[in-house]
Amino acid sequence: MTRRQLHLNGFLKGAGEYHAGWRVPGNPPDAGVNFPFLAEQVRRLEAATFDSVFLPDLLGVPDDPPEVTERVAWSNDTLEPTTVLAALSAVTSRIGLVATASTSYHQPYTVARVFASLDHLSKGRAGWNVVTSLNDAEARNFGLGTHLPHAVRYRRAEEFFDVVAGLWDSFDDDAVWADQTTGRFFDPAKLHWLHHHGEFFDVAGPLNIRRPPQGRPVIAQAGSSSPGRALAARIADVVFTRALPLIDAQAYYASVKDQAAGFGRDPDQVLVLPELATVVAPTRAEAEDRFAVVRDLLDPRVALADVAYWAGVDLGGLPLDAPLPPLPAGSNRSAGAQAEIYAQAERDSLTIGDLVRIVADGDGAIIGTPADVADHIEEHFTQGAADGFNVSFPWQPETLVDFTELVVPELRRRGLFRTAYTGATLREHLGLDRPPSHRPA
Amino acid sequence: MTRRQLHLNGFLKGAGEYHAGWRVPGNPPDAGVNFPFLAEQVRRLEAATFDSVFLPDLLGVPDDPPEVTERVAWSNDTLEPTTVLAALSAVTSRIGLVATASTSYHQPYTVARVFASLDHLSKGRAGWNVVTSLNDAEARNFGLGTHLPHAVRYRRAEEFFDVVAGLWDSFDDDAVWADQTTGRFFDPAKLHWLHHHGEFFDVAGPLNIRRPPQGRPVIAQAGSSSPGRALAARIADVVFTRALPLIDAQAYYASVKDQAAGFGRDPDQVLVLPELATVVAPTRAEAEDRFAVVRDLLDPRVALADVAYWAGVDLGGLPLDAPLPPLPAGSNRSAGAQAEIYAQAERDSLTIGDLVRIVADGDGAIIGTPADVADHIEEHFTQGAADGFNVSFPWQPETLVDFTELVVPELRRRGLFRTAYTGATLREHLGLDRPPSHRPA
Repeated sequence: MTRRQLHLNGFLKGAGEYHAGWRVPGNPPDAGVNFPFLAEQVRRLEAATFDSVFLPDLLGVPDDPPEVTERVAWSNDTLEPTTVLAALSAVTSRIGLVATASTSYHQPYTVARVFASLDHLSKGRAGWNVVTSLNDAEARNFGLGTHLPHAVRYRRAEEFFDVVAGLWDSFDDDAVWADQTTGRFFDPAKLHWLHHHGEFFDVAGPLNIRRPPQGRPVIAQAGSSSPGRALAARIADVVFTRALPLIDAQAYYASVKDQAAGFGRDPDQVLVLPELATVVAPTRAEAEDRFAVVRDLLDPRVALADVAYWAGVDLGGLPLDAPLPPLPAGSNRSAGAQAEIYAQAERDSLTIGDLVRIVADGDGAIIGTPADVADHIEEHFTQGAADGFNVSFPWQPETLVDFTELVVPELRRRGLFRTAYTGATLREHLGLDRPPSHRPA
Repeated sequence: MTRRQLHLNGFLKGAGEYHAGWRVPGNPPDAGVNFPFLAEQVRRLEAATFDSVFLPDLLGVPDDPPEVTERVAWSNDTLEPTTVLAALSAVTSRIGLVATASTSYHQPYTVARVFASLDHLSKGRAGWNVVTSLNDAEARNFGLGTHLPHAVRYRRAEEFFDVVAGLWDSFDDDAVWADQTTGRFFDPAKLHWLHHHGEFFDVAGPLNIRRPPQGRPVIAQAGSSSPGRALAARIADVVFTRALPLIDAQAYYASVKDQAAGFGRDPDQVLVLPELATVVAPTRAEAEDRFAVVRDLLDPRVALADVAYWAGVDLGGLPLDAPLPPLPAGSNRSAGAQAEIYAQAERDSLTIGDLVRIVADGDGAIIGTPADVADHIEEHFTQGAADGFNVSFPWQPETLVDFTELVVPELRRRGLFRTAYTGATLREHLGLDRPPSHRPA
């Protein structure tokens, strides 16, 4: 029997996940649009045998006061992620390539084509992170005044995914003959029209691209609300989730696996990857000193805006020693993230200022030694809390290099992580079956 | 004064523009999804200092009888072009990269981001071929039973372009400070909201990507109907058009330049590139022999379907010695292409069989010596009929290699074509000004 394998995904966000990451002296401040810099980081992660990298996305400049907007790099000046993945496919050969695409503002035929194309370009290394989008600034770029109600967004996401998956199965795996002698390019009996008619979409099909090398590109999802979790349990190969204390992480892990089983799926085929941010150095004191320098670069107004974003409320003008304001009636933000931050604030009696401090302090980042990080990983991995981690890097390249040079060797020493790729596709890295082709009903 | 420069764009379509191109023995029959093969062809064109390559697109499998569909490679099994351009940006350094994107089935915010991203990834080599789409099979993949009426498509295209152009100007060229010391990433006075409210789109902006290196990616257009020509004259940097006899080509060329001037534009900043397909060999007899082999590979049903496609009518069951059937009332296909084929058929009293033969014979391809091709190019270029050519390759790699090895040296010998790139961006290759940034009204 094969030993269970730890999975590491690199979450890459411009100059780094920490809002002040772009300000670290010596780092390229234009990381969001600097492809050679990004490619160098991805090749580092590939050399460290990461399963994949993941590029998030936003379809607009978030609504913030100007003094915040002008201080934020990533969300305001970053390349479109599917084009970036395509370019990365040409300069990498093994690492998986995952990007976000919204089900609220795109069309399923387009998304199916783009990710099928990425899967062919990368020879089976593509993944799609399915998001429903939660930002009014995005809605206003697509003809809506406000984003769709939570329940509508998720109904649309469910249908959107089904259409995309159906389109990926347009050609059976053995449909293409490309027979130069007879002139018959494919077997027409193995090309399927979808004829989908649903609440949100009418899509006849077929897709005009042969089946992707992975059958379906890997599906990632990060929903934390109840419909978000149900969607993930039904469709996701990889579930990205926030970092939680062990006992909460175990409960979440078990619930995802249970829900997946409830959909008739093998729970081992749904991988739970909590976020893990690290600042690593040979000693804890060095790691803390290193972080303290970057913490000083964070403007508190940016941290406050981050709290307001996730809480889904306007915090302008409120004193820092006040609690979060009551939620407006009919609030319609990311129900999961919003519920979590309110629950955390209530449980720990946190003021707005406390929440700002949590963000400024790295929001759960492990600041310590390679052994500290490896201990956390090993505990969560072996204690039913994680199948691996979605590793974010507070600022780049430093924290990324440190992870690959200090943490990865420690994980390998403990026998937790591969020393070489054994598969060719992202599904193979992740130990996931290649889905058989289904004909439309 | 700089000598006027000939421009060459390579039109790349799977295994080749000729329908039977994929059947040529020894060619890769999977060219539509074979990125290494495509990259090799593009690097050949870059070595030959072509201005650019262009990838067409279709958003569906065209409606054809099964015995035709199963014999057609390109439109039924080809990667999505913007992802392919992005991958090409990583393996080329000078050649321009142009792809089609439809204004009928996409959203302007998405298209603006994708092409801004491509322009950054390629350091100023991106171009967008604006099409309105004319195929019912495409419409049915995007929730419509039939494609939009011609006039509506063009009104939408006009508005779509204006939104995209406005979004590309979201950041002034000098808006980004990326000042690590002060923490101010950009000057908020130089970030602009578009607040567009129109017939088809409501888009607030701003785009979340700094201004593209070219200011705007190069705009290509191929409209041949009256509204299509008006759109091209107003917005296009490059007008792709079909091959015409000299006198007709001169009239078309003059009308595009006049119309552009009518929009207040410098006519020299609108380049007219007719299509040019060639089968070249050292002697005419060799070229004809070479073509005859490939012509024999074309199934006549495929050629008939091509005629039906461009004529926009169903030809099933009609005898080959009949004329084209009368147009159905309210016909709504590509008004320009349809009008041209009907005009040609009436002028020359062509039967359906004659039109099929024209397609099978290469539809105007020059089958001859390098001097034959260079003579044609020189005549049209110097006699006010073309600023360059949109060079298509009936089958690859052979006809592409022959063009670069036989025709390009002859053009250089005549002093018509560059021997090395002198600029870095596609606009520089084409001799086009970089558009200044406009603030929204």
